[in-house]
Parts: sequence; C-alpha cells; structure tokens
Amino acid sequence: MVVATQSSKSVEELCINSIRFLAIEAIEKAKSGHPGLPMGAAPMAFVLWDKFMKFNPKNTKWFNRDRFVLSAGHGSMLQYALMYLAGFDSVSIEDIQQFRQWGSSTAGHPENFVTDGIEVTTGPLGQGIANGVGLALAEAHLAAKFNKPDATIVDHYTYVILGDGCNMEGISGEAASFAGHQGLGKLIALYDDNHISIDGSTDVAFTEDVSQRFESYGWHVLHVEDGNTDLEAISKAIEEAKSVTDKPTMIKVTTTIGYGAPNKQDTAGIHGAALGADEIKLTRENLGWTYEPFEVPDEALNHMRKAVERGASQEEEWNKALADYKAKYADEGAEFERYLSGKLPDGWADVLPSYTPEDKALATRKHSETCLNKLAPVLPELIGGSADLTHSNLTELKGYGDFQKGAYQNRNVHFGVREHAMGAICNGMSLHRSGLIPYGATFLIFTDYMRAAIRLSALSEVGAIWVMTHDSIGQGEDGPTHQPIETIASLRAIPNLTVYRPADGNEVSAAYKVAIAKAKNNESTLMAFSRQGLPNLKGSSIEKATKGGYILSCGFAPEELDIILIGTGSELQLCAGAAEKLIAEGKKVRVVSMPSWEVFEAQDEAYQDSVLPKVAGKRLSVEAGTSFGWEKYVGFEGGSVSIERFGASAPGAICLEKFGFSVDNVVAKAKEVIG
Amino acid sequence: MVVATQSSKSVEELCINSIRFLAIEAIEKAKSGHPGLPMGAAPMAFVLWDKFMKFNPKNTKWFNRDRFVLSAGHGSMLQYALMYLAGFDSVSIEDIQQFRQWGSSTAGHPENFVTDGIEVTTGPLGQGIANGVGLALAEAHLAAKFNKPDATIVDHYTYVILGDGCNMEGISGEAASFAGHQGLGKLIALYDDNHISIDGSTDVAFTEDVSQRFESYGWHVLHVEDGNTDLEAISKAIEEAKSVTDKPTMIKVTTTIGYGAPNKQDTAGIHGAALGADEIKLTRENLGWTYEPFEVPDEALNHMRKAVERGASQEEEWNKALADYKAKYADEGAEFERYLSGKLPDGWADVLPSYTPEDKALATRKHSETCLNKLAPVLPELIGGSADLTHSNLTELKGYGDFQKGAYQNRNVHFGVREHAMGAICNGMSLHRSGLIPYGATFLIFTDYMRAAIRLSALSEVGAIWVMTHDSIGQGEDGPTHQPIETIASLRAIPNLTVYRPADGNEVSAAYKVAIAKAKNNESTLMAFSRQGLPNLKGSSIEKATKGGYILSCGFAPEELDIILIGTGSELQLCAGAAEKLIAEGKKVRVVSMPSWEVFEAQDEAYQDSVLPKVAGKRLSVEAGTSFGWEKYVGFEGGSVSIERFGASAPGAICLEKFGFSVDNVVAKAKEVIG
Repeated sequence: MVVATQSSKSVEELCINSIRFLAIEAIEKAKSGHPGLPMGAAPMAFVLWDKFMKFNPKNTKWFNRDRFVLSAGHGSMLQYALMYLAGFDSVSIEDIQQFRQWGSSTAGHPENFVTDGIEVTTGPLGQGIANGVGLALAEAHLAAKFNKPDATIVDHYTYVILGDGCNMEGISGEAASFAGHQGLGKLIALYDDNHISIDGSTDVAFTEDVSQRFESYGWHVLHVEDGNTDLEAISKAIEEAKSVTDKPTMIKVTTTIGYGAPNKQDTAGIHGAALGADEIKLTRENLGWTYEPFEVPDEALNHMRKAVERGASQEEEWNKALADYKAKYADEGAEFERYLSGKLPDGWADVLPSYTPEDKALATRKHSETCLNKLAPVLPELIGGSADLTHSNLTELKGYGDFQKGAYQNRNVHFGVREHAMGAICNGMSLHRSGLIPYGATFLIFTDYMRAAIRLSALSEVGAIWVMTHDSIGQGEDGPTHQPIETIASLRAIPNLTVYRPADGNEVSAAYKVAIAKAKNNESTLMAFSRQGLPNLKGSSIEKATKGGYILSCGFAPEELDIILIGTGSELQLCAGAAEKLIAEGKKVRVVSMPSWEVFEAQDEAYQDSVLPKVAGKRLSVEAGTSFGWEKYVGFEGGSVSIERFGASAPGAICLEKFGFSVDNVVAKAKEVIG
Repeated sequence: MVVATQSSKSVEELCINSIRFLAIEAIEKAKSGHPGLPMGAAPMAFVLWDKFMKFNPKNTKWFNRDRFVLSAGHGSMLQYALMYLAGFDSVSIEDIQQFRQWGSSTAGHPENFVTDGIEVTTGPLGQGIANGVGLALAEAHLAAKFNKPDATIVDHYTYVILGDGCNMEGISGEAASFAGHQGLGKLIALYDDNHISIDGSTDVAFTEDVSQRFESYGWHVLHVEDGNTDLEAISKAIEEAKSVTDKPTMIKVTTTIGYGAPNKQDTAGIHGAALGADEIKLTRENLGWTYEPFEVPDEALNHMRKAVERGASQEEEWNKALADYKAKYADEGAEFERYLSGKLPDGWADVLPSYTPEDKALATRKHSETCLNKLAPVLPELIGGSADLTHSNLTELKGYGDFQKGAYQNRNVHFGVREHAMGAICNGMSLHRSGLIPYGATFLIFTDYMRAAIRLSALSEVGAIWVMTHDSIGQGEDGPTHQPIETIASLRAIPNLTVYRPADGNEVSAAYKVAIAKAKNNESTLMAFSRQGLPNLKGSSIEKATKGGYILSCGFAPEELDIILIGTGSELQLCAGAAEKLIAEGKKVRVVSMPSWEVFEAQDEAYQDSVLPKVAGKRLSVEAGTSFGWEKYVGFEGGSVSIERFGASAPGAICLEKFGFSVDNVVAKAKEVIG
C-alpha cells in the first residue's frame, strides 16, 4: 500500500501522528510492545476522543463520563498516548518514556489498578468487550433506576476498541450475543479490522464475516471502509451509532496495521515488536514527521488538551443537573450518592439469618438463596444472576424482576449459558464504580469456563461475588464432568481471591457478610455451596465463621490433643460425628471448621495459633475434593480424607460413601494419623 | 401444541417412540436425568442412525465408521437408547435400567471411557461440537494423507447433535468459525432448536439468529421446520448436507422439547427432571404407547437391529478396500496400520537431543521447538499448532506446511485466537483414535481460557500434548495479565494430567519423551516452557528427568544434609548457584530437580525416598509461582521462594530480581530454613 505524503498537515493529522509516534518511540525505547494497533487505530481513536468522548481528565472519577475500553489491550500505547495528550495527570511524557518499566504508570497492558483513568484491565483478549457490556449494562440499569422524566443524571456511552484477536475469542461472541439480546444501545464497539494477527494474515485462520455475525446477534452494524484517512466517515459512523439507541453498534473500521511504516505496515511483523531505527526513520519520512522522539507539536497538544476545559464544563453541567435532581428527588438523590460513595447502608448485615442445630437441614445453596433474598431489599445495588441455572443455583432475587430490554431497572440478569462472558460482564459492572455489587452463578465445575474472568476480578480490584453451587461429588448423577475435584484448590490458588465453602446456615450468612463487605472494598469472593442438605452444626456461628477458620468443638488443651480434624462445607459434619466417636473411645479431639483459608490466614498469628496450635501437629483434613494444598495445614504427620481421581455418576450419597466420606472412614483415617 | 394421535403406527414411529419411552422410563427410575432432549430429538436421531450413519455395533473400533457426538450431553439417554436399539453390546436393557447408577455403563453424561462405542465425553456444553471439529479435522487429514486416486480408505462423516446451550457457549462459536474457515465438509451438525433452556424460553437470553451466525462462519445452513414429525424433511436435509463437501453443514431442526408430554412439553420443566407417573401416563396416552416400561416392540427392535448386519457388511466392504490398498500401496498401508495400532516407530526417541553445560543457554521454548522438529519426521502422526502465537510458542513443524482447505495433508494447524476450541479440537483429534498425536499451544497463562478442555483431556483418556510457553513472571513486560502465578499449581491439581516444567535442554527432551509415550497411552501432558534463556545444567540428563524428580547434585549422605533445595524450570539454576555458595560456607546441601510432580510420584517409594529422604526434613522449594501445594514436599519445617501476589510489567530479569529470584535470596531463605 502506498501511503500518501501529507502535504498540508491539518491539526487532526498532527494529533493522529502524535499518537503514532508516541507509541513508536515508547515501544522503541522499551524494546517491547505493540506498535501496529496504535498506528492503525490512531485515526478512529483520535476522532472518538476528540469529537465524542465525554470525560474530565482532571477528574477521572466523574460518574457520568463515557467509558472507554481498549479491548485490544496489547495496543496500550494508544491509550497512554491519548491520555497524555488529553491531559490526564496519571500519564506524563516521562511516564510514556518509562513504558513497560518497573513501577511505571504505563504498564504493558492497560491496568485500572495501576493507572488512574483506565476503566478496566485488558490484555487477555475478548475480556474488554465483555467488560464493556457490563459497563453498558450498569449504565442502563442505573439510568432506568434513577433517571426521571424531568431529570437525567445517568447518561453516558461505553466505547470499545477491539481487534481481530478479540473477535476470535469465544468470550466476545458470548458477550456480543448477550448485548444484542439486551439491546444495549449505548454500547459502541469500533472493530479495528486490520486483517492481521500474530500468525500473519487473518486469511490463515479467520475468514468469517464478522459484520454478518454481529448482525445475527441483533447489533446495528456499520462499516468505515477507509479507517486510515477518512476521518469524516469515522465521525459519521459514530454519530449514527449514537443515534441508534435500541441496539448496540459495531463499527467495522478497516485499517492498515502499522499504518505509515513503509516496509512493515500491513504485516504481522509490526504487530508486536518495535520498529527499529531504520524503519522509524522511513516512517518519519513517509509521514512527514520531523519532531524529536517524545516531542509533540504544540498545535496538537493544545488541540487535544482542550479536553480539560471541555471535560470540566461537561462535569459542571452534570453537577448542576445532579443538584437539581437532588432538590426535586431528595430520597433518590441521597440513594444515588450512597451508591457512588461505595458505602453500605447501616445495619445491612443484620438481615442475615442465624441458625441453631434444631433448624432444618438444608443445602447451603438454599441458605444462599435465603441470604440473597434477605439482602435484596436492603442492598438495592445487588444485581446479578446465573448462566442459565437460576433454579439450580437458587439465585433469583424474588420480586425484583428480570433485567431485560425495556426493564433495565430489574435486577435478575439472565446471562444465558455464557459463563465466561458472565464473569467479564460482572467485572465490568463492578468497575463501573457506581456501587453496584454484581454476582454471577453457575455450577462450581464451570468456573473452568470463566476462570480467566475470575482471575481478572481478583487482579483488577473488582468487587464481585461468584455464587457456585453443586460443589462436590455430592452433586451426584451428573457424573465426573460435573463434579469438582480440583476446582476449589485451583481457585484457592488465585491471589487476592477469597474462597468460602460454608458448612451450614450460619457459615453461609458469614460468607455473605464477608463477601458483601469485600465487594464494597473492591475485592471478589467465590462461594461454593452444596447441592445436598446439610445439618446446622453445634458450635457454628456467623461471627466465628467470619474469621475464616475457627474451633467448632474442643474440650481439650492444645498440648493434650491427639488430633485436629479440619473440615469444610459438607464434610464438617463428618468431622463432628467422627470426633464424637473418637472422644467416646478416649481420644482427645478438636474439630476446626475452615470455610475460608484466605480469611483465616488474614487473622493475626495469635488467633491462627489458637485454632491450629503448633503443639498439636497431628491433623486430618476432610474435604470432598483433592488434598492439593491441604499439606500446609496437615504437614508431613497429618493426612487427608480427599479424592485424588475424577468422580463418578451415581446418586450423591452413594458417591460420597464410595469415595470414603463417612464418619466411619474419617474415624479410621484419624486413627491412622494418631498412630 | 396439540400432538396428533398416532392412528397407524409406522415402524419409524415405533422406533422413535421406543427411544422416547426408554429415556422417559430410565430417567423416571433414576429420578434423575434430562428427558426433554431425547423426546424432542428422537426423530432426527432416528433418521440419522437408521438411514445415514455408517457403523458396526459389534465392532465399535472399526476405523471408517461415521463419528457421532451428542454435544448436548445431558440428553445422554438419547444416545443410550440408540445404542441399545442398534445392538451395541455395551448398552443392554439392564444397563438402561441402571441409568446414572454407580458402576453402570449408562452414566449421567456420555463418557467414552465408560461406555464402549461412545466417541467423546460430553456434558460441559459446547465441548462436543468442538470435539466434532477435531474428529472431522482428523478425517480430513488422514484422507488427504492416505487416500489415493484409485483407493479410498479414509472416508467418513462426523455428525453432531447440539442444542441451544451448546450454541450459547463461546467455545462452539470458536470451533464453528474454525470449521467454516477450514471448510470441513464432512462435518454435519444437527441443531436441536427447541427454544427452551433451563431458565425457560430462550427468549430470556438467547434471541440471536443462529443460522445467520453459522452462515457468517462460512457454513452451509439448512432448516427443517418440523423436526417433530417430518422425517422426510430431516432425511432430505442430511442428504443435502452430505452432498456439500466444501463446507460444514448446520441443519437447524426445529423441535418441541419433551415432545409428547401434554403438560410439560415445550417448557423448561421437562428439560432436566423426570416426568413423574402422572405425566408419563398422559404421555403414553398421547403417543398411543401401550408397552411396559423398558419394553420395546419387536418390530422396532428388529428394524433398528438391522444396523448389526448393515454395519458388518459395511465394515467387510471396507476391509476389502483396505486389503486392495495394502496390495497396491504396501508402505502407506503399513504406515496406516501402524497409525491405527497406536504404536510408536522403533527408535523414535533417539532423535531427542541431549546437552552438556557447554551448550548454549537457550529458552526451554526454543528446546521445545527443536524437539518438535526432530520428532516431526519420525512421528508423522504429530499434528498441531498454536492459538495464533506460533512464533512465540515456537511450535511450527518446519517444512510440513499449513493445514488449510485444499492442503489437509499438512500438519501445522492455525487455530486462531481460540484457545478453548483448540483444546477441544485436539481432544477430538486424539479421540478419533487413529494414532494422531495432537498438540496445542499458547501462553501458559491462557490455559485459563481452555481449562475445561484440558480437564476433559485428563478425564476422557485423550492423548494430547499442551505446549505452554512464557511460564512465569520471567516473561516480563506484558505484565500481570500475562504472567502465570497460580497457573502451574492449578494445573498440577487436575487428576490424570501430567505437568512438566523443564529446566534445560535435557529436561525438555525428557518431557517430550514422556509426553509422546503418554499420548500413545491416551494420557495428556502439559509442558511449561520459559520465554527466557536458561543454561544447561551440570547433573541434568534425559534419563534422570524422565523420572519426574531427581538429584541434580549432592555430595552428602541423607542424614547429614542441612537442606534440600528443590527447583523447577528456570529456578533450578538458582538452586544450583545457591548450593555452591552454601557448600562453600560449609553447609551440606542437595539440589533436587522436580520437573514433574506426577511422574515423580509415580516412581516407587524407594526411589522417591532416595531423592527426598525422610531423614532430611529441611527443604526449600524455589519456583517462580505460588507455593500453593509445595507444602507437600517442604512440610512445616521448610520454606518456599515463591510469589504470593500477582506479577508486574517490567523486563523479565527485573521482575525475577524484584520478586526474589536470585541466588542471593535463595541462599538467604535457605539459611532461614536451616535456622
């Protein structure tokens, strides 16, 4: 492709080339990064940020800003260049010079927890567009909830730039299908159609008709044929996209990857590697760029910095609208402000029920349903649902309606059988940072389908709640494809994620108490609930279970203990039963409930030692899953009643019995450990 | 919907109703299962099995059979009913009466490792259709490789029944996009379009135009409007599908879920629960069914059992064709038979290179590339590729061309950025059971995107090789979204999966030696390779590393050891360096390399104890990832140099240094443990 020489440099061209060369030079200096996308997508990004995006660079937290997501996160320099040019304090020219270096604000991929003004963390492909669906869902919900015919306080767009990689990932298809179904009209995705991915031309693996696919999802689809130079067409397309409010819009913008680099543009070679001095020189000549590395022409900087003033006035206008709103609608205004504050209403946790052993044995998923429904009225910001297992996961907020097109104020979201998108959509809802507490539910085993999104919830300071049911072989007949064995261990291994596996009603209430508080603190919690009924145990309490691990029963001093039985979830009752038998035989036994390793390990050392005293080294863990990781509590001297193979299809009680989850077997294993 | 009373019962109707009532009664007896799909999909399944499917019920291993996949695996009774009626020995009427019971051949979901004649394990939605793509890919590859203009020995279709759930999952979209790109014309998917999923009508979450979507992928799309009764239309559609050989076909078959149950059909209530006695009675009346539970009218059984004779003669015909082929093409015939035998050629492992410390330091991904390319000529059954990271994963088999439409004989598969489908496609290739050794590659972190497929490889006796590179924070600048921390632990936790993290060239060769042998034994191995260069270590060897764990260096008796340093992968060199320093200071140190926990633990106890003697209780693990699980080797007295948080974006060497992966820090931590 021949790149036209720029004879007259309009300010637009200067801005666009500023973006390109900031990216080129930062990547060159770092000797690492992805110049192809920033160079090709600079025109669409410039038009979007310059003519359409509503934001205040000096107040990145302004609620009513448009949200921008670079789903093709490897093109991070595009976003950093835009942020620097637009006047964000978090990205200075020095920061850009420190691209991809230790401690800089310009990490390899956009990270919301590192760089103020970035909405969501991208890089793992397809997550960003699904986060965008979550952001748009949050906006739609809050708009339906708070806006009044005569007063609008929630009104922004969500813009996403995604690439071929994002579009190949299944998660993006799931999210797009959901968004189309829901008609999220204020979601606008710009697809950087550059027909190159890492392996070369998309001809080698990706020849589908993406536009037709988005049409099949119910999206409004547009095409800008020359995304390299036709700024007018980009602008018109975004305008048209904004005008269609009952469908999300996908604008396919055909571009040239690495636009302007005479030898490397339109090749995979420019996707993910620095250009090198020679090609930079040629690119400069080709684009008529005479500025020093990291130098931005004043004209361009002045033009783009108008965003500061523009944003301030947009925010001011909104502040007035909010003041008017509060004057007219005091209660709603106060509630809106509470949402934004991230604060929980006083006394919210008082609704969580407590239980005694006399209360009916119920599945913990049933207790979870109770908690969700007790919390629903006091926490109107609780919103979520299941990946098509609502009545198995028991996650319906009764009386709060289905979130659907025309009923966005409702709070039960039907995600469909789209676990991965559900995860990323919940992440987006939380990262809307408007106080919403999203939850997503499926069978525990299917966390495998959404693991990348769960990991991102832990990494990127999301406050979501993952409600997972059917948490062991106790789920029964569905068999090994549906029975978690290694699942809980693999989730406990994720940094920053709190995992709870409660044993009874009190422990479920405790799990919710912790999870809600953590959600408001931008931390995510995953809860694993049983399918089968479980007794309410003597010795459990909400308060104790909020410590993560505690003594369920013990009548002996630490130094005289023969063994500590440590159980979680449905197996804690076996520990209690075994302890009874062992004590009757003269053994000195303590039972410890350990619903959450992470929460237990966050307690002070004295407390931890009071529960698991160092002097009491003989321990047996009992959990219907792998022993992987339990060695940390049971050591070389201890043991585990566990499962080290896949499960089997049979009624749950039979499975548990066959795999050794009986009081008698726990007694026998305990005796082996005692020796 | 009014169901027409069957006044005259054709044999077809009897067969179809036999399927329905076997499902109804088996599920009723088990009080567990999913009758809705078998009842609605019985007509299409009957037509397919009766008129089209080529198979020999008495020889389920016959190579040239058509492959059948019930991607909507919850409808397993459909498949068991078909198998019983068609005369498979693995499913008797007694087996059907034991549906979903401990030890039966009729598990909750179809399981190839339990029930002879089932091709792949389904249940987790979307996997089956992606497995089907792998089966069709295997057929296309073998056909291109072995068939001659005058002699055809590879020639079968792959049929898949999938439902709304499968179609909502992202993995199915990835796989379908890939299949459309590749033009896999002998793949025929019947989509049971019953507009019901667990949460109710698909109207609540799934209103996309599925047919249009498949068209966008390049599929041939057909529609049977009345899949309940129009057998002729089903038949014509399958015929038309077979005739289009350059595109896969999706036949949307509109049906009524739970067809025939007057109160429950067309509702979510019949999706996943037994009908109950009352509704069964009404269904019997409605469908004019007067037979006892589990009774099949002779006419129906005799009709469907014709499959036995038909299959025998189809196989006989093929056996003749194979004999002719072997007569004409002795070498190819012998190779084909070796493929089917699952045997490796003599001396294959001799090509794996060994190294000495004088050899150049290289990234283990680079050694992996060498192994793949050494193996490629001696193992022509090795076929695979990367999810669009070919030149980062270094997985190209050089000189063996790209697998593409018109070039199916080639062996480099471009999966696109579709990790999850890649996993399931590789599973399907292996489960074609024709000797192929599939491999799939991406960055280690993105195993999170394909975890469900990796789990299924371990569960369902797949022999695949997962080639994962960029295995730690050492990957550097891409930052925490791309840096595995908990990833290796979470993979080690999966039963039946062998994980290797080699430290140098010899260990990479060992990993391939083990992985290839395991693949032929229908076991999967995941290998984690470094991005960065690593020295070849003194004391490593292929032979030792094939034991999973071994003594890299030790000049001391077990009882005098001060500490054992246990390292894997890129950190083993730190252990070696630290041991040198510690020994210089008078400490007695052993260095153990532990590239594969699973393989080490499969050695006899004496060997294990010789490496990690019980008397030497002070141990330090060194691995650039979480310590989760390492407690099993280091116990209460030991320690770990590990990472218990997410990574950071910076050059890899800086990341490793900042996170404590230096000889000096290993020395310091070792001293702490020694105390």
